[in-house]
Amino acid sequence: MFMGASTEEGKLIAEKSRIIVKSLIKDQIEEIDPTEADIIERIVHSTADPEYAKLVQFHPKFVENAIDSLKANEDILTDINMVKSGITQYDGDVDCFIKNDEVIKIAKEFDITRASAAIQYASDIGFKGIIVIGNAPTALFKAIELFESNKLNVKAIVGAPVGFVGAADSKEALIHSNIPSIVTKGPKGGTPVAVASINSLIRLVKLNY
Amino acid sequence: MFMGASTEEGKLIAEKSRIIVKSLIKDQIEEIDPTEADIIERIVHSTADPEYAKLVQFHPKFVENAIDSLKANEDILTDINMVKSGITQYDGDVDCFIKNDEVIKIAKEFDITRASAAIQYASDIGFKGIIVIGNAPTALFKAIELFESNKLNVKAIVGAPVGFVGAADSKEALIHSNIPSIVTKGPKGGTPVAVASINSLIRLVKLNY
Repeated sequence: MFMGASTEEGKLIAEKSRIIVKSLIKDQIEEIDPTEADIIERIVHSTADPEYAKLVQFHPKFVENAIDSLKANEDILTDINMVKSGITQYDGDVDCFIKNDEVIKIAKEFDITRASAAIQYASDIGFKGIIVIGNAPTALFKAIELFESNKLNVKAIVGAPVGFVGAADSKEALIHSNIPSIVTKGPKGGTPVAVASINSLIRLVKLNY
Repeated sequence: MFMGASTEEGKLIAEKSRIIVKSLIKDQIEEIDPTEADIIERIVHSTADPEYAKLVQFHPKFVENAIDSLKANEDILTDINMVKSGITQYDGDVDCFIKNDEVIKIAKEFDITRASAAIQYASDIGFKGIIVIGNAPTALFKAIELFESNKLNVKAIVGAPVGFVGAADSKEALIHSNIPSIVTKGPKGGTPVAVASINSLIRLVKLNY
């Protein structure tokens, strides 16, 4: 199983794509850690956008912390259901609380986005694991705020919120927070980037990396 | 409810984003049909990538056919579950058959991708409506093949498969098929593009467009 392909035709397409991706971004990946290179390749494969190879930035402890958490089958928390539904090969739990009744109540009470309230709720119920954000800057800001006040047991964050309002700032704040993370600098990001990043690591863990 | 925002904070972010998006792509949208412009704006909002305004191409009957189908609550068929889970406001059915047992059997028997087998399966069970493709070129090729042999009752296609192998070709084939469609020309596309396109139309229908 490689990049979601489960048939011969699917595997051939994925292999051919891998070769094209490597040739497009070889200057950005030839001298970096192979696990980080694998993540970048998979992001470019998923978006067909080589610019991501220049936008991705890793905290030095991201890969190690994320792999430890995945090996322990800790929870993965996503900001929206689209991200959750792309994470299909994990043995642990993949949660998204954005439609939870309690979350909708928190959002109304504090007049914050549901995505932000969902992170608050995760903290309230004792979440431990990796947070994967593919959409909402407000969720990322909330995660940083809770981490910094010791209220969120997050081991690593995939920070790929997208948009022209807040996304770039939220990723700069993540870099400065010192939470082990991967981010795509600037406005770009999104669900395929977030899913590609975490799925690369899940596959490595399954291969007994 | 605008672009998924349901709280005051969310609405403010969406409005601010809309203004930025309009200013970034005004040359591409100022002289086109307002519904097509709305779709393009929403794609750029969802990807934070203004290049999409240059890549999007509409068949002249796409908007009309898609809106008629949505008004009649016909089915929406997606290639992968990530696309399905992004379409949250539709009153009709949103289907994705990629994990269906029969589809897995068809894929093995004919050695085709599951995404392609899922379109075959939809044809077999008498699907009627709109197909939304955010990932798999093989699904799009299969839809065109079945349409051309009068075996698929598809009213419109959102064609946003992504990748360096087959995606661009599948979208060229869609343009030449004369199926009412929206495509993103070239390798780029993906689930956010697909979801943004159909959600823009679903919202317009709800507003009694």
